[in-house]
Amino acid sequence: MLAGGSGTRFWPASRRRRPKQLLPLEGERSLLQTTIDRLAPLVPVDRVWVSTTAALADEIARHLPALEASQILVEPAGRNTAPAIAWSLARLPAEIRETGAVAVLPSDHRVGDAAAFRATLRTATDEVARHDRLFALGVVPRYAETGYGYLELGEPLDGASGVRRVSRFIEKPDRATAQAFLAGGRHLWNAGMFVFRGARLLELLRLHAPDLSRDLDEVALQPARSAELYSRLPSISIDYALMEKLDDLVTLPLDCGWDDLGSWDALANVLPADERGNAAHGDAVVVDGTGNLTFAEQGTIAVLGLSGIVVVRSGDAVLVAPRSAAQEVRRIVDQLAAAGRDELL
Amino acid sequence: MLAGGSGTRFWPASRRRRPKQLLPLEGERSLLQTTIDRLAPLVPVDRVWVSTTAALADEIARHLPALEASQILVEPAGRNTAPAIAWSLARLPAEIRETGAVAVLPSDHRVGDAAAFRATLRTATDEVARHDRLFALGVVPRYAETGYGYLELGEPLDGASGVRRVSRFIEKPDRATAQAFLAGGRHLWNAGMFVFRGARLLELLRLHAPDLSRDLDEVALQPARSAELYSRLPSISIDYALMEKLDDLVTLPLDCGWDDLGSWDALANVLPADERGNAAHGDAVVVDGTGNLTFAEQGTIAVLGLSGIVVVRSGDAVLVAPRSAAQEVRRIVDQLAAAGRDELL
Repeated sequence: MLAGGSGTRFWPASRRRRPKQLLPLEGERSLLQTTIDRLAPLVPVDRVWVSTTAALADEIARHLPALEASQILVEPAGRNTAPAIAWSLARLPAEIRETGAVAVLPSDHRVGDAAAFRATLRTATDEVARHDRLFALGVVPRYAETGYGYLELGEPLDGASGVRRVSRFIEKPDRATAQAFLAGGRHLWNAGMFVFRGARLLELLRLHAPDLSRDLDEVALQPARSAELYSRLPSISIDYALMEKLDDLVTLPLDCGWDDLGSWDALANVLPADERGNAAHGDAVVVDGTGNLTFAEQGTIAVLGLSGIVVVRSGDAVLVAPRSAAQEVRRIVDQLAAAGRDELL
Repeated sequence: MLAGGSGTRFWPASRRRRPKQLLPLEGERSLLQTTIDRLAPLVPVDRVWVSTTAALADEIARHLPALEASQILVEPAGRNTAPAIAWSLARLPAEIRETGAVAVLPSDHRVGDAAAFRATLRTATDEVARHDRLFALGVVPRYAETGYGYLELGEPLDGASGVRRVSRFIEKPDRATAQAFLAGGRHLWNAGMFVFRGARLLELLRLHAPDLSRDLDEVALQPARSAELYSRLPSISIDYALMEKLDDLVTLPLDCGWDDLGSWDALANVLPADERGNAAHGDAVVVDGTGNLTFAEQGTIAVLGLSGIVVVRSGDAVLVAPRSAAQEVRRIVDQLAAAGRDELL
């Protein structure tokens, strides 16, 4: 479980010490908790490891009281997914790393249909156990999204239920390309979910990213300098460091109500709404308004005569914006940072 | 000082136990405190009496620590200005009531130019002392307001500096009439401020509203039943019960930046604003927006990409509305009341 990320898109609910994966965006449980809950019928909690940074480790332990301390893997610093995955795999129990199927999963996404998600994951882990395959799971596109990368589907594998080769990775496409992908049915959203045997991934990384592998060995050998050395690692994604270079990467299509919840607007689309399309988390009163999102961690939000806005109350801050500007919340955070208002970040 | 009023137009800052006059809308001091501060050079605080109801008396005493308990006059119930004024006058020290000039003033209005206000008030009190006149002060109109009543100016009085007769009271006019009043220069806004000798007003009331006067006598004679009897009094304004019936009512024009602060929108017009017209009370960040009002009693309000809205955070509630709908805040309050959400009222 990758849970070291930080971000600003859910400010003021998300803060430096409480990034998105620790927010209870949909219900009472945080996205991280929900991610682990969702896996439970397939992956018992003693087989879950959470990778994060020192700044978040205590809070994550508080969110996940069922985990042993050894299941929280603290990266010396935050350096994107390639270092995080390699560092974490090296810290798994040897038997797990050598023989088990490992699923690397983001901890801040939404899955509407948990059973469908587990069924696909189960197929993938079976294929890893039987054939040592390496999966990048992809999501069946529901609209022409230009904000995601895509996986291009190659040939189906003989005898493997639905498994297909990944013929290439495609960076965020332009609108026309995204529409063609949607219409063509030969592309999946790259959701950052991978399934593989741990030792195999480390071998491949040693082959395709030898510098990174060596540097990580060095960090492990000098624990007193780990933060310093780790901070010097390149901030590089596992896609870029490894996955895009592989010839035998395979995929399975996920059709499970997945959403990466990239903004308040995305959350508004998945929260239950009243008959006027007003979605609410916490207490709200809306008079003469439609299509609003109210998110009250405490107290009550009242909206009068406005539509299509998002109103968030979290701790010491209130945010009001049109849903169409929800992607720009960073501008508020940047302005607060420039003004030295660290207590609000 | 009439401080018994309640209202909903400044919800969520105003609540049942904290009506508008107790709100620090412009600065750190409540409107009631500011009203008394403004008078201080002319009326020492030991000559101020505050009329209110039992529900507000403790909070008012807390706002005005310089007042003796005897200066807070608790009405048995809230029954509009005619009963409130008559009841309060009867409770003043006899010498004050018989000989002093009494100014009846609302405690929830704004005055921009306190010196101008005091100068006019001083002229009026002098005229009361010298000639036992009865004043309804009026405000020089600055725009064609249809929400106020008007005083029509009659003949100037000989030898009295600027004092003119009131030829009649006019109820809230339509737009065309209000525009004609503004252009004509012969009408003033009725601001609910009166100056007179107390005993004279009670005599006139006995003449023009004998039933009310008798009923008030009865309340005074039966203190054990005062709440019950007082509650049965007609809810009637002093304008309607008395002032409109007088032939010798006079006025002076107030030109002192008066505003009755009838809504959040009115407050937005008088609070200091930044160069983009964003007015703020408390902490705020506005990115990409103009002409907003933010009112944060606690914490920080951030507005992104919206203009002309009002955002209020007070206690357990947040209100968001376009400034143009600020007059309709009651609709939120009504909905909360209908839902039994008394803790928010």
